[in-house]
Amino acid sequence: MQRVCSFELSQHVGRRVRVAGWLHSVRRMGALNFVVVRDGWGLIQAVASAAPDARPESIVEVTGVVKSEPQLELHEVEITVTEPVGEVAPVALGKKQLELPLPTLLEHAVIATRHPTRRAVFGTLAAAMRGFRSALEREHFTEIQTPKLVGGATEGGANVFSVKYFDRTAYLAQSPQLYKQIMAGVFERVFEVGPVFRAEPHATVRHLSQYTSLDVEMAFITNHFDVMAQLARVLRGMFEACGSDIVVPEHIPTVHFSEVGTSEPDLSPEDERRLGAWAKETHGSEFVFVTGYPMAKRPFYTHPDPERPAYSNSFDLLFRGTELVTGGQRLHRHADYLAALEARGMSAEPLASYLDAFRFGMPPHGGFAIGLERFVMQLLGLPNIRLATLFPRDLTRLEP
Amino acid sequence: MQRVCSFELSQHVGRRVRVAGWLHSVRRMGALNFVVVRDGWGLIQAVASAAPDARPESIVEVTGVVKSEPQLELHEVEITVTEPVGEVAPVALGKKQLELPLPTLLEHAVIATRHPTRRAVFGTLAAAMRGFRSALEREHFTEIQTPKLVGGATEGGANVFSVKYFDRTAYLAQSPQLYKQIMAGVFERVFEVGPVFRAEPHATVRHLSQYTSLDVEMAFITNHFDVMAQLARVLRGMFEACGSDIVVPEHIPTVHFSEVGTSEPDLSPEDERRLGAWAKETHGSEFVFVTGYPMAKRPFYTHPDPERPAYSNSFDLLFRGTELVTGGQRLHRHADYLAALEARGMSAEPLASYLDAFRFGMPPHGGFAIGLERFVMQLLGLPNIRLATLFPRDLTRLEP
Repeated sequence: MQRVCSFELSQHVGRRVRVAGWLHSVRRMGALNFVVVRDGWGLIQAVASAAPDARPESIVEVTGVVKSEPQLELHEVEITVTEPVGEVAPVALGKKQLELPLPTLLEHAVIATRHPTRRAVFGTLAAAMRGFRSALEREHFTEIQTPKLVGGATEGGANVFSVKYFDRTAYLAQSPQLYKQIMAGVFERVFEVGPVFRAEPHATVRHLSQYTSLDVEMAFITNHFDVMAQLARVLRGMFEACGSDIVVPEHIPTVHFSEVGTSEPDLSPEDERRLGAWAKETHGSEFVFVTGYPMAKRPFYTHPDPERPAYSNSFDLLFRGTELVTGGQRLHRHADYLAALEARGMSAEPLASYLDAFRFGMPPHGGFAIGLERFVMQLLGLPNIRLATLFPRDLTRLEP
Repeated sequence: MQRVCSFELSQHVGRRVRVAGWLHSVRRMGALNFVVVRDGWGLIQAVASAAPDARPESIVEVTGVVKSEPQLELHEVEITVTEPVGEVAPVALGKKQLELPLPTLLEHAVIATRHPTRRAVFGTLAAAMRGFRSALEREHFTEIQTPKLVGGATEGGANVFSVKYFDRTAYLAQSPQLYKQIMAGVFERVFEVGPVFRAEPHATVRHLSQYTSLDVEMAFITNHFDVMAQLARVLRGMFEACGSDIVVPEHIPTVHFSEVGTSEPDLSPEDERRLGAWAKETHGSEFVFVTGYPMAKRPFYTHPDPERPAYSNSFDLLFRGTELVTGGQRLHRHADYLAALEARGMSAEPLASYLDAFRFGMPPHGGFAIGLERFVMQLLGLPNIRLATLFPRDLTRLEP
């Protein structure tokens, strides 16, 4: 008999079928036993006169007749244990909620991820990637894959991992920044979904050593406002793919950095929360753009505001009071790169071959990067980015 | 006037439009000049009475009236140079073919990739990824992102890169093998598109230090033949997305390793060519499966053939006489892993937390990995995998 998956069950009401999966839970109710089987997509309840003699997580096959009343379940069942489990699992998966301290959850992620609540988080991650890509492919963006092993740091030198690369030293790319700009000079509109690496020396709830960056770059823009409009369209596609009803407003409230009322060269978490609350109260928006960050706080490739050169044509997007996306217009002239690098005391020499992209014709361009795990963390209201990462990497964690 | 892209031009016949792009070439034909503008998707020819005074690759805007006879082109044009190029580019992009020695092409990849022939290769890469994902999403596979920084080598110790990871040593993942198996225990059907890293100490035309691996893993299989059938469906989706008319036969010719007639424990390139020629001649197939590789030549997680345990339930797929895909059934029982590791003199201890996946319920499962760049190399008949990689990494190349 062909195996039926949980997502196909409703098409077989009244018929005898075979399902297979993990023995998720058994509830003994006297003469009746509710045996719940978990497959890769959902739970299937079987009503059995005898409970199987097996530990949770054993692999089982169940044949039974599909009933739809009072709910979709299997009756007249036969249960076979095909792969018995010999020990009690380190985390109990059969309960509605998985109430474990974070370190335990992460230590046993290999098993804990099987729990429906954890699996749902990673299903949302997959949906977010799908929504990101399809929103961009609709608008003729081309996907690229760029090197993760690079000759030098691109986003500043402090938090970069070094690699023994044959007889020399390489670095793990902190972002695909220069590559995506180069490729905007080829395909105009490009995106990449891939790992980036930051040697974060501090333990925080929203930073990891490796995360998935959703990168976009686009050419022939007027300024960063074109990039912000593109970002809004991409986010709509992502929320929709995740089955979320969050509305990205037609006009996202936008505040210039100089109007935020902070004395710092960057926003504090408190500033972000305050701006988020303001956007929600006055505009009913979960989102707020902060534009015009001081040039001093942005990387060398940032384009200044032509009217007020101490400020930049860049932006952050705050979602629910926390930074979610960084982006902006980039420098596009070779001479501007040389000047920007010199002003920061950086040598242009290691970047020479990359800077050829700007030497030989580059239009105004810009882009943004969304942290995939941070997107899901904030969408689902998770308290720690580690909960939105399959196998997180941080100061102390390199396994599982 | 709103800018029109090359892919939209045919919708504007008879109207005056504005296009923008790179000055690709200028042909002076006496009173007429054929000015070709390249945008992110194609070439647009403008017929001008005066050629622009600008070097190739300068950014130009052209307004003109769209004519469709004798071909789609712009007439009555006005050309503005918005970003002039001051120097002659290191590679000449205006010719039909880009005839450069490989080292020159790679050294100047930042510019050379703009050439239509090079760009087409990378468009095919993007299409192959799209086809891969959509074939799998149709069949309820879930996309995953797994760690690239790992505590130990998974595919054998020789060709692994080491990373200074805070105060310890990490390694770059040679494959997502154990992670995708673990995740087959969660979602049953998973895939990943991501970089893998191999410290290849030899310079060959088909190996790189970083390539893009298209990984698939699926649970509840009978044996490797289920995996091979899944692979055939995925390849059909990839060829279709690439606009290729290559036919993946309903029944791909399949040869058991013991019937190949080689005395080696692995196939030589000459064996591969011979088998490819045989499949083409006798079955009209570009593809041939070789199954049952000796266990001694396969990694520790390989499932043996229950009938002939010296051989494995694994396969390679040869495409046009070269290995394209490796896959097979995996061990799924904890005790089998411990025995396999011991038999190879490997310690189970560093793998303990991963092996929990098999300790606590895992069904028979298997999968495969396609090298994205190798797929495109063989599809397009390129002589070197470096030609199918944006910015290749090898023994000597870490830039651009």
